[in-house]
Amino acid sequence: MRELRSDHHLKSLGLHVSSAGYDRQGVADHANNLASKIRNNLTSSLKAIGVDILTGFGTILGPQKVKIGSSDNIVTAKNIIIATGSVPFVPKGVEVDGKSVITSDHALKLESVPDWIAIVGSGYIGLEFSDVYTALGSEVTFVEALDQLMPGFDPEISKLAQRVLINPRNIDYHTGVFASKITPARDGKPVLIELIDAKTKEPKDTLEVDAALIATGRAPFTQGLGLENVDVATQRGFIPVDERMRVIDANGKLVPHLYCIGDANGKMMLAHAASAQGISVVEQVTGRDHVLNHLSIPAACFTHPEISMVGLTEPQAREKGEKEGFEVSVAKTSFKANTKALAENEGEGLAKLIYRPDNGEILGVHIFGLHAADLIHEASNAIALGTRIQDLKLAVHAHPTLSEVLDELFKSAKVKEHASIPELPKHYTSSSGGDEHIQNPVKEGNRLRGITTGLIMESRRILLVLIYFFHDIYRVCQRYLHLLLLFLLS
Amino acid sequence: MRELRSDHHLKSLGLHVSSAGYDRQGVADHANNLASKIRNNLTSSLKAIGVDILTGFGTILGPQKVKIGSSDNIVTAKNIIIATGSVPFVPKGVEVDGKSVITSDHALKLESVPDWIAIVGSGYIGLEFSDVYTALGSEVTFVEALDQLMPGFDPEISKLAQRVLINPRNIDYHTGVFASKITPARDGKPVLIELIDAKTKEPKDTLEVDAALIATGRAPFTQGLGLENVDVATQRGFIPVDERMRVIDANGKLVPHLYCIGDANGKMMLAHAASAQGISVVEQVTGRDHVLNHLSIPAACFTHPEISMVGLTEPQAREKGEKEGFEVSVAKTSFKANTKALAENEGEGLAKLIYRPDNGEILGVHIFGLHAADLIHEASNAIALGTRIQDLKLAVHAHPTLSEVLDELFKSAKVKEHASIPELPKHYTSSSGGDEHIQNPVKEGNRLRGITTGLIMESRRILLVLIYFFHDIYRVCQRYLHLLLLFLLS
Repeated sequence: MRELRSDHHLKSLGLHVSSAGYDRQGVADHANNLASKIRNNLTSSLKAIGVDILTGFGTILGPQKVKIGSSDNIVTAKNIIIATGSVPFVPKGVEVDGKSVITSDHALKLESVPDWIAIVGSGYIGLEFSDVYTALGSEVTFVEALDQLMPGFDPEISKLAQRVLINPRNIDYHTGVFASKITPARDGKPVLIELIDAKTKEPKDTLEVDAALIATGRAPFTQGLGLENVDVATQRGFIPVDERMRVIDANGKLVPHLYCIGDANGKMMLAHAASAQGISVVEQVTGRDHVLNHLSIPAACFTHPEISMVGLTEPQAREKGEKEGFEVSVAKTSFKANTKALAENEGEGLAKLIYRPDNGEILGVHIFGLHAADLIHEASNAIALGTRIQDLKLAVHAHPTLSEVLDELFKSAKVKEHASIPELPKHYTSSSGGDEHIQNPVKEGNRLRGITTGLIMESRRILLVLIYFFHDIYRVCQRYLHLLLLFLLS
Repeated sequence: MRELRSDHHLKSLGLHVSSAGYDRQGVADHANNLASKIRNNLTSSLKAIGVDILTGFGTILGPQKVKIGSSDNIVTAKNIIIATGSVPFVPKGVEVDGKSVITSDHALKLESVPDWIAIVGSGYIGLEFSDVYTALGSEVTFVEALDQLMPGFDPEISKLAQRVLINPRNIDYHTGVFASKITPARDGKPVLIELIDAKTKEPKDTLEVDAALIATGRAPFTQGLGLENVDVATQRGFIPVDERMRVIDANGKLVPHLYCIGDANGKMMLAHAASAQGISVVEQVTGRDHVLNHLSIPAACFTHPEISMVGLTEPQAREKGEKEGFEVSVAKTSFKANTKALAENEGEGLAKLIYRPDNGEILGVHIFGLHAADLIHEASNAIALGTRIQDLKLAVHAHPTLSEVLDELFKSAKVKEHASIPELPKHYTSSSGGDEHIQNPVKEGNRLRGITTGLIMESRRILLVLIYFFHDIYRVCQRYLHLLLLFLLS
């Protein structure tokens, strides 16, 4: 939409459009149709491969035992996987009415496009919605508690993202402030947001806007699961697990046959991280030991252009290098040198490789640019497999493709001539070994989601009990069933 | 452009555009600006890193000796790389006037958009131009000598491409026929194309069209190089080389210090294959032995959606399996199951993995679908590095991305439980070893291109002599200097 309305963009490509618009209901319908299509596909695929689905609230009664709903319907299973996910986190003082003060759950339905919307929080979710709302013509104001926008990204990527995704658009921002009180619009009055200084807590400002989107992260959905029956105490709502996703009880011991994956354990709050953890558990319960290397899990932010990353940021890598005594180097390439990006008039972009020059190990890769969410997988595969940069340098990339950005990135890294060869990962185990390497991006007051409890009865034939606490089968399907589907089909 | 004009496509996304058009000169200008931008960037990068550029026709006088132009300007070098590329191949009986009967060189300048254009040849080039011309409103007629369109692709991919890229568009076709005579439009008469049966050579039909694009491939540009001075005889115009790109003379012996890369040797007529061969040569002359595995070189066709491939087609793999006595399996996934593809209303697509179930070796991957040209690199990297499918299965892919198509593809492959582990490739050498594995897609009457001769003086400090036979510096830069740039910068 943004591109269609940009005369300059189209004209430079030799195209013209006399008037472009959108139909809010049409866009919303496309999103809803998509959601229901995926839900139906996944549900029927699960049934087709012989998965039993039991619907209801699940309570763990003890090891290998779950009660479904308030009835006496009790099922037993060899193994139980908790995958209850998370829900949007709403800070104290914020009144969500689902109309003028909303969370991402409401925003996805796109029931209205406000002229002016405040977005509280500038992480993935906030940034993605700022992209959508400004494309549809809204004015956006960010409210961010930390001193800079997009605090979760590599600093250099944040800086570029600010230059491309924030500054030239209808977006302003307040950093270093909390929204201490948000009152929905009523009686003809706008939404009222009271801002206080994040450090001193002194009142700072008051905003009057048409709508506010609360994008302050997600909180684990772990209440009412009957965790007390297996002596498990949550930590800030998260269920404690070891590096094999085995649930740890209040005494630090493993609860037999009980696993927890996804947002509910807080290790890495991403849909595909949950899938990967689920696959890791199924590998284990079917007799193959497996430890997931969370540093090999890519993440993407679906703005235009996209942002993606895997592994450590530069500051994280430098800190680790200092602590463990190895040198850290950085290689960078610009999308401006990429023929395909230039052909699409999308030369704004940066790819950044953080690595060990002594042995060619990849520590992190960060990409801002066209198709970044696809391009990251060459890097994440390399980290997962322990591939060294000196070998990747010689892999051939097709011309003219955006993937050549990665080609240049690997080729521009300077690995020492007689680099020691890092050990390749053992089959089915993590290349980085222990839990101390596993990234934990969970911050105080972070986010949560979803709903299901899975029971795995046998190693080959699997009975899966899905216990829906809420109506939100869409998210469940998309986020958690996916993994089971993929695994069971394989 | 096609998408902008498709009411159905836009409406299903909730967008509308009241009238979309294009300005031929604007599109042509964008292409020309892009070309000159890339040319300038590459030329200045080469100069910046200390490459000397000598312009003129080059003639090899003997080992390590080249004459430039007709003057007495003779330079010597430790090593010489011939990289003279190819030019469009024009069959006998075809009269190219550059206006109504054109080659891809003319078509790229887009000086006119004919109402009805015949495209002779349905390979990469023909298919890409059919995509461009139909998007701009032309009617297209293919003339293909073989019995089916797109004979170079995996048969299943051709079939799907025909269903998506040909049938629903303003395209018709004649297969099994040669264009025996093509006369340009003149005196108010249209372009005349006489068709004969490819087998019987009997006259079959006559077409009257507004224009004809000759896309019958490219022929090596190797005349006037002074090859006779080093006793080298070309084969159908191609310069014979061994698997290390060392030129072979008429007696089957290696010519010392003389290499040939790119279209001129005919091993694999793709820009990035030429780059990779060049890098391989530079590795060798700087003291590191290297054999390029041509089966790891991806290829892409930039239609909408794109087509990409690496390694063997299914028939090639089955033939090899039969000969060498191993089983061949095929896994497939559809873009219809991919959330991101569905979100963009681009669910038409197929990814196909051809592999050995006994050890998990990847033999070939073929993709038809959105971003196919980027997605192929996970597969080409895996082939280059000798990565087994059973290890790739556990690599994590971000959700929702198009890369999840590959994730499903790897996960759906059925590798035997105790698969023998194929040897990983030795550092800097090909995983598939000998020359007999190297794919040679060159067919009788195939294509050609480009122009340069490079002299490499020393291992570290490099003097590069670029000898332009023609004015076409753009193609030279884009195709051949690229590789040197990348290498020299690394």
